[in-house]
Amino acid sequence: MKPFRKSEEEAILNTLGKNLKKLREEKRISQEQLAFEIGLSRSYYTEVETGQRNLSILNLVKITRFLGVELSEILKLEDLKK
Amino acid sequence: MKPFRKSEEEAILNTLGKNLKKLREEKRISQEQLAFEIGLSRSYYTEVETGQRNLSILNLVKITRFLGVELSEILKLEDLKK
Repeated sequence: MKPFRKSEEEAILNTLGKNLKKLREEKRISQEQLAFEIGLSRSYYTEVETGQRNLSILNLVKITRFLGVELSEILKLEDLKK
Repeated sequence: MKPFRKSEEEAILNTLGKNLKKLREEKRISQEQLAFEIGLSRSYYTEVETGQRNLSILNLVKITRFLGVELSEILKLEDLKK
């Protein structure tokens, strides 16, 4: 398998972050509130939304549960396959 | 939000690992082969399948692409919600 190019990894994390931000804003939850409720630092969560953080699957599950969405919504599988 | 209990985190990672193992075996790919192709160590990948490793979202995407499956298949969303 070809290794991921750096740009591809960035694209995946950017897509993930943008989807999270969109869903969070739709629910009118602030970054501070989300980070606090989940037990993450605000700066960590900001990095997630800006695609700078390769977060763990457990943290991603925590975030999706808090937002009340499916992982598939966050990951937008079709986007990620491009 | 209630923080995850340790047992719940373990259950999520166990489910994820079992699903990966099942899909990998269905495709008759060895752990060694999968780990090598993706650029992970065999021991790291073994820990993923046994639920001992909270892997990153990028590594999970790499694994699912190599197996040719959707993330949703690996995560078995219904199982994870229990």
